[in-house]
Amino acid sequence: MRADARRNYERLVDAARKVFADQGGGASMEAIAKQAGVGVGTLYRHFPKRIDVVEAVYRDDVDQLVGLADHGLVELGPWAALEGWLQAYVAYGRAKRTFLNELHEAFEKNPDLKSASRERIFAACNRVLARAQEAGQARSDIDGEDLMQLVSPMCMNSTLTVDQGERLLAMVLDGLRPTVPQTVTP
Amino acid sequence: MRADARRNYERLVDAARKVFADQGGGASMEAIAKQAGVGVGTLYRHFPKRIDVVEAVYRDDVDQLVGLADHGLVELGPWAALEGWLQAYVAYGRAKRTFLNELHEAFEKNPDLKSASRERIFAACNRVLARAQEAGQARSDIDGEDLMQLVSPMCMNSTLTVDQGERLLAMVLDGLRPTVPQTVTP
Repeated sequence: MRADARRNYERLVDAARKVFADQGGGASMEAIAKQAGVGVGTLYRHFPKRIDVVEAVYRDDVDQLVGLADHGLVELGPWAALEGWLQAYVAYGRAKRTFLNELHEAFEKNPDLKSASRERIFAACNRVLARAQEAGQARSDIDGEDLMQLVSPMCMNSTLTVDQGERLLAMVLDGLRPTVPQTVTP
Repeated sequence: MRADARRNYERLVDAARKVFADQGGGASMEAIAKQAGVGVGTLYRHFPKRIDVVEAVYRDDVDQLVGLADHGLVELGPWAALEGWLQAYVAYGRAKRTFLNELHEAFEKNPDLKSASRERIFAACNRVLARAQEAGQARSDIDGEDLMQLVSPMCMNSTLTVDQGERLLAMVLDGLRPTVPQTVTP
């Protein structure tokens, strides 16, 4: 894709993400085109069907989430990378919930998309967790798959509020610290 | 219900619980009767339909889980009561998963059953958590509803293994301890 075509594509994806967040996955192509400041014809030229927009936003979300793990591993300390990635994961889950019905449709059309994305995200989680474990900054008795089994279903729960997600992640992060002898008597 | 009728009823429910755990929610009335050591006619006299057995097991599971909270509050220290109740909750979730399809049917027939059970379980969680918080043995920034929002979806996840559930609950319990300044540098 040429640089300007790439920029246009990204602008459409960003606009769609914002519209889905505001209006849910049922938002119209017209609303997305308006948000992007283009005619609806331009949007349809890039994405022949609404489900193609959903898939593009989802793919971009997964790319960003996986990229953030790699970025954190280079730029941040082991604990900060783990904490930052899990916060981003919770935000990713919240965004995904807004177009979950549409995403299920995209997964039906393209079953590999779901499993490949899941694998990439689990691997990213493993990388940031393993580094924190190697540095002695995270408990060693769980792995990234375990951690995802706890945090992912929480994020997919439609009744989870933003505040609740933050409170619970803070608790999970405290639980992720290396285990130390407890001073509290049972 | 007379005492001997009550005992018979409980024997059938216990037998059904075991058969569902071994064979899943699709287990036959014959298998349940056999496990209970009664003729299938006796089973049908108590439970005209298979879904009635599912509902009875579920009601009994909820009663036991709620009763365990009250028992712990009387018999155990605040932390032990919280820990024991959460372990029982994870086991309850695992059992529930074995007859989840059948349970959804029972909920459709009787929508109040789901909401009333949920309320009772959340209230039980609140009681054991609040007591541990009052004793300074659990973090004070979350409530029972928060905690259930984390643990309940985890338990309902069909890919959760027994070991994983135990590891993750241990981590959640560590996260539930009162927050203390961390010695680990980020």
